[in-house]
Amino acid sequence: MNDFEYHNPVRIVLGKGTIARVGDLVAPSEKVMFLYGGGSIKKNGVYGQVVDALAKHEVVEFAGIEPNPRYRTCMKAVEMAKQNGVDLLLAVGGGSVLDAVKFIAAAMTYEGKDPWKILTSHGSVVNSAMPLGTILTLPATGSEMNINSVISRESTDEKLAFGSPHVYPRFSILDPEVTYTLPRNQLRNGLVDAFVHVMEQYATHSVKSPLQDRQAEAVVKTLIEIAPAVLAEEPDYDARASFMWCTTQALNGLIGCGVVQDWTTHMIGHELTAFFGVAHAESLAIVLPGVWEHQFHNKQGKLAQLARRTWHVTSGDEASQAKAGIEKTEAFFHSVDMPTRLGDYGIDEAGIRKVVDRFTKRQALLGEHQNINAQEVGAILESRL
Amino acid sequence: MNDFEYHNPVRIVLGKGTIARVGDLVAPSEKVMFLYGGGSIKKNGVYGQVVDALAKHEVVEFAGIEPNPRYRTCMKAVEMAKQNGVDLLLAVGGGSVLDAVKFIAAAMTYEGKDPWKILTSHGSVVNSAMPLGTILTLPATGSEMNINSVISRESTDEKLAFGSPHVYPRFSILDPEVTYTLPRNQLRNGLVDAFVHVMEQYATHSVKSPLQDRQAEAVVKTLIEIAPAVLAEEPDYDARASFMWCTTQALNGLIGCGVVQDWTTHMIGHELTAFFGVAHAESLAIVLPGVWEHQFHNKQGKLAQLARRTWHVTSGDEASQAKAGIEKTEAFFHSVDMPTRLGDYGIDEAGIRKVVDRFTKRQALLGEHQNINAQEVGAILESRL
Repeated sequence: MNDFEYHNPVRIVLGKGTIARVGDLVAPSEKVMFLYGGGSIKKNGVYGQVVDALAKHEVVEFAGIEPNPRYRTCMKAVEMAKQNGVDLLLAVGGGSVLDAVKFIAAAMTYEGKDPWKILTSHGSVVNSAMPLGTILTLPATGSEMNINSVISRESTDEKLAFGSPHVYPRFSILDPEVTYTLPRNQLRNGLVDAFVHVMEQYATHSVKSPLQDRQAEAVVKTLIEIAPAVLAEEPDYDARASFMWCTTQALNGLIGCGVVQDWTTHMIGHELTAFFGVAHAESLAIVLPGVWEHQFHNKQGKLAQLARRTWHVTSGDEASQAKAGIEKTEAFFHSVDMPTRLGDYGIDEAGIRKVVDRFTKRQALLGEHQNINAQEVGAILESRL
Repeated sequence: MNDFEYHNPVRIVLGKGTIARVGDLVAPSEKVMFLYGGGSIKKNGVYGQVVDALAKHEVVEFAGIEPNPRYRTCMKAVEMAKQNGVDLLLAVGGGSVLDAVKFIAAAMTYEGKDPWKILTSHGSVVNSAMPLGTILTLPATGSEMNINSVISRESTDEKLAFGSPHVYPRFSILDPEVTYTLPRNQLRNGLVDAFVHVMEQYATHSVKSPLQDRQAEAVVKTLIEIAPAVLAEEPDYDARASFMWCTTQALNGLIGCGVVQDWTTHMIGHELTAFFGVAHAESLAIVLPGVWEHQFHNKQGKLAQLARRTWHVTSGDEASQAKAGIEKTEAFFHSVDMPTRLGDYGIDEAGIRKVVDRFTKRQALLGEHQNINAQEVGAILESRL
């Protein structure tokens, strides 16, 4: 097992009717900035619940944070928060709203000239942040219990990530009932997103960390088990509660303790989203099988273990079990109606060249062995046409 | 799934040579009280590592915290800490030292007249505590990442527990190499202690929380897998690291989120320790199979699931699988040379009567269904003679 440090101070409040508790989680003296997205929370009743719960607090609102939140929008929120002298940022929404608010929190106290540097430095320049809390409405990214944030810049088609322990939410409220109004494709995206988050921390090579392996498998086995009930037309409370807790546990740092991580699929997927507007989870479902096939020899042991323990594949040697692990994973994606090919989104050779060009310019090497260059990215994407 | 709140802000630092980092985890201005047990840390080098790491800090020492730490000893430490105006308590040892320091931390800022009330109120009177950190030398109780503490009062043979989020350690350092000098019976006790901690939160009845079930199974399956390597004469670093992380994860609140918990085995076991000096884990190994047999119909579903998923028991109906789960658990205890009968410690009918008398006086009902009275405790113990 590799050495590690784990410190996750987020207070999780999970259950029915828990949005009503936000008033207790914010000090009476704190002035709140309530940030949200495109207004779906006004249709499903969440907006009213938040307003009621904060009736005794001073609140200012900031609406209009878009999916794949934009730097420009975030900077407008920073300006408004400064003008209003707020004390706490309350993000109400899915991963995009939460990620945006983390960036806003960091930008609020950033002392440098250009807050874009928070992103280009991957968060290394962040020394403090404004306190934030979250109310999650779309289980997927795990942003409610981690230090990560992804922000887009429209002017340059860039999508950059940063992380800092200073942007851990002080609390996150998870009411499974708020997911009842989500469209099926967003539930599907959440299942796949969480699945791939686990795999980025699992499907590498063993450093003899059997507990973390099993904790990771616990999440993916549960996602597979509950997927039909999560997607059923009639909302199933327990399935939705497990879905929320799985997506949180998939990326709160725990299963990543002391293991080797990959994140190639995310790095390539981010570019598909930035260039072609493919949803985050959709991009991951395309790329993951390609990365696994390309890095087969490095990942064979873990992929075979996944196949044995998750789908009870027992026949064949390690290589054929690992192959079955890739096939079963893609079959799981298909079982929730998730496409897994670039062609499903009309992305062709020319599209691949745009992505490859970007990686060529960045000169970054991807993967746990740092052996995937721009050309290899091209090969991976070619295999996913 | 039941509603839950989860908030665990302990910073875990796990790895080789991590004791050297304690100097960075304590602010330069903080005056440290370094508390430990019977002096084994002087023999195995840990004492020297701590002194070296805190060379630049002002430090006072308090030695002599005994196994099953006594109230009187704790109150002596409180007096010394107050006299010396310390800012942070550093517990270096196993569960007993850590539990004692949690109580000392709570007693340091307790405003009532009699700190014993911290224990008789189970912590409900605790509104604050002095900061504390820990360096774990004996993986077993999980005290390094939870809010719990158990203290004994010699004058009345009492062993009482309290819990409060105010006594979460600020940090806990886990260096697997410090376990290399532990005697075999302490390693065995740690394996069994962690196993039973998981079972108290698992072997009840299902509330449809499949992720928590699998996270719990992840810990026990790993404990069973690594047990031979943990007990091997030649220390195995990775097995010891997994052992430490399993014992922490077994009782840091995570697997208990949103599920029904039992703790009957602990309540009865504590009395065996208080009256007869049986080690904590030894008492649990005696009592657990008896509680499971006594509550068989209430626990059958989970015990069968345990048998299927942990020992791959597939034949027979649910009842016979559940029975196999009990047998396999007792066999696991025996495989690490852990006795499971009262007679192994010379405890007889007269001893059982002492325990039953205490539960009769307390009039407490035990178990997830609150259906175990003093008489039932007697029946459980009779079955374990």
